[in-house]
Amino acid sequence: MTDGKSSGQSGRRDEVNRFGVPTLRTGQAHPHPEPIGGAAYSAAELMPGYRVVLLDQRKLPTVERYEYYGRADEVAQAIRDMVVRGAPAIGIAAAYGMVAGALHARGDAASFLEAMKVADATLRASRPTAVNLAWALDRMSKAAIEHASLDFAARTEAMARAARALHKDEVLACRKIGELGAALVPDGATVLTHCNAGALATGGYGTALGVIRAAKEAGKDIRVIACETRPYLQGARLTAWELAKDRIHVEVIADSMAAHFMAKKAVSLAIVGADRVARTGDVANKVGTYALACLAAAHAIPFYVAAPWSTVDLACATGADIPIEERRQEELSHFVLPDGGSVQLVPDGVAVKNPSFDVTPANLVTAIVTERGVASPTSAASLARLAETPGV
Amino acid sequence: MTDGKSSGQSGRRDEVNRFGVPTLRTGQAHPHPEPIGGAAYSAAELMPGYRVVLLDQRKLPTVERYEYYGRADEVAQAIRDMVVRGAPAIGIAAAYGMVAGALHARGDAASFLEAMKVADATLRASRPTAVNLAWALDRMSKAAIEHASLDFAARTEAMARAARALHKDEVLACRKIGELGAALVPDGATVLTHCNAGALATGGYGTALGVIRAAKEAGKDIRVIACETRPYLQGARLTAWELAKDRIHVEVIADSMAAHFMAKKAVSLAIVGADRVARTGDVANKVGTYALACLAAAHAIPFYVAAPWSTVDLACATGADIPIEERRQEELSHFVLPDGGSVQLVPDGVAVKNPSFDVTPANLVTAIVTERGVASPTSAASLARLAETPGV
Repeated sequence: MTDGKSSGQSGRRDEVNRFGVPTLRTGQAHPHPEPIGGAAYSAAELMPGYRVVLLDQRKLPTVERYEYYGRADEVAQAIRDMVVRGAPAIGIAAAYGMVAGALHARGDAASFLEAMKVADATLRASRPTAVNLAWALDRMSKAAIEHASLDFAARTEAMARAARALHKDEVLACRKIGELGAALVPDGATVLTHCNAGALATGGYGTALGVIRAAKEAGKDIRVIACETRPYLQGARLTAWELAKDRIHVEVIADSMAAHFMAKKAVSLAIVGADRVARTGDVANKVGTYALACLAAAHAIPFYVAAPWSTVDLACATGADIPIEERRQEELSHFVLPDGGSVQLVPDGVAVKNPSFDVTPANLVTAIVTERGVASPTSAASLARLAETPGV
Repeated sequence: MTDGKSSGQSGRRDEVNRFGVPTLRTGQAHPHPEPIGGAAYSAAELMPGYRVVLLDQRKLPTVERYEYYGRADEVAQAIRDMVVRGAPAIGIAAAYGMVAGALHARGDAASFLEAMKVADATLRASRPTAVNLAWALDRMSKAAIEHASLDFAARTEAMARAARALHKDEVLACRKIGELGAALVPDGATVLTHCNAGALATGGYGTALGVIRAAKEAGKDIRVIACETRPYLQGARLTAWELAKDRIHVEVIADSMAAHFMAKKAVSLAIVGADRVARTGDVANKVGTYALACLAAAHAIPFYVAAPWSTVDLACATGADIPIEERRQEELSHFVLPDGGSVQLVPDGVAVKNPSFDVTPANLVTAIVTERGVASPTSAASLARLAETPGV
């Protein structure tokens, strides 16, 4: 379904690539000849020859630069440094990192599995909160065991196939999340979002932004308010960039302004992504999410979470069991310049707290939209029902 | 009362300057021989020879630079550009701006009053939300009428006296606010604050930070969490700088993290300043204040406002009647560098909303602390009672 008012991505869903993912070209060059993400840009792809390519998201919105990685530990470092970020996207990047690892393991099955174990451990340790990382590595390590006895070339290609299949599944999950979530977004809605849960945070299309895209593609008039999302400014830099490319109306605000616009009745609903969903439905996501959920509740505004099933961690009992990453103080105390220099914002000797995520209890989440269905009301019971449902 | 653990300001209240303001020297040089602010730094002072000196707060915390102004319109521009900010401080700066105006009016009484009218209008238009600006200008314009018939030298000195008296009154108000507010702060408290309502935002000592200072001086163990306060970062740059100077323990967080720390029971109470208090007790203050008040209510944390009576606008019926300044988009869409350059944060063509203030309804404010007493519960009735009380 096309939207007469928009050109760009949302207007052209006519092609499907060989992975079965609808392709959405905006005319810009992607280094990959056929990116699984389906758009003109993507967070992570596996190049012919098995090099991993990541869009350096730290340089957006002014510079669109792809970086190439040939080793698993380099991919792990890129995840740690936030070249790529967003729970589903770091899972995909880690899966491709395993392929890069396989490419350097020319020995027999045992030495290959040993190399895969090292690659898995290195990638797994890169960031703690998003469970998609562990999910992707579990799946790739299973593939490694399955294909260990093949010869080097066949084994490497089998690992690449497994990683690409995982990537494709995640994009199709986003598509399904978009379809299910769009039904929750009324025509004429102004949607508040935080951080970036878009194509850049996933295999492509996005979770929270996938819902917005799908609502727009269904012909609804949608406006977006993007919280800038300190300290990394994923809202200002990435969400605004993605939506502007798709000609979806977006305005950026400081995180502290959300309540002000809620009070002015300028927000119809809020929707965000997730880094991990506990069995009870408690949600870890970018710090500031919990504040928005509290504020949405205080203003009787629906608060939705959109996430692929790979983000749901049924082994994690409650939000209190989710490890919250505390990142470097310098991310908040200094402003990093494009040339690598920095401007000091906080006086010498003053400490900074920099938790990268927070936990929103299930009772503040109106619904969780996954590709398996919508958990609503958000609870252990509604998630357990989806656990029994097949995925995409 | 001195606090054995702290050196710096809070440890030395032994001297009183000729304005009756306790002096607190930390050893740094202030360009004024005897600043009314009472500390080693101050936002605004009138130099001998009637030049206005303002600390350029945009350069803190790394550069402490004073700028001199000889004309009222220059002071108005400095207020607009946020060289000086904070409701009481811009009132004082405007009062000194009127003295600068008087120094250029060498004609007869009629031409002096005409010049004062122009200076008043220019200064009054510099920023819309803080009522202290209008309050200070009303008081200075009254002084101009009173002294218009004096000769040039006597008239200028009379205007300077009036401005210095206003400044002194504002510092003493902060001292009294500190004394009254300190009673609300329990020993061992962790106090959340937003923006900067300190010595830099007032004549000296501060309102919200005055309460923290007074609690500390009373021997209480106090820790402060300062929200960085986007987009101008007054919390990270100014509040942290002031409190670090006074050796009061302070940690900086992103604005979006406040709820996370409230949920972790790491916040005992919140206290902020105000730019205008309406008759009903609705409070306009730096954007983000309303969010914090909602979040404090949701976590059963007391939420206090500290402000001099000059901030209370009984002519303003409710919060909805307070004009909210919308500042330039570039403050949020770009990061300004010390050399005057900037780094683009928001993509081309994406709009930004930048309201500088928001309104917190009286029902979310546990109490308003003024030098006339504490309005609690916050209401038109409790403020009306204080209106009958004499000031400092």
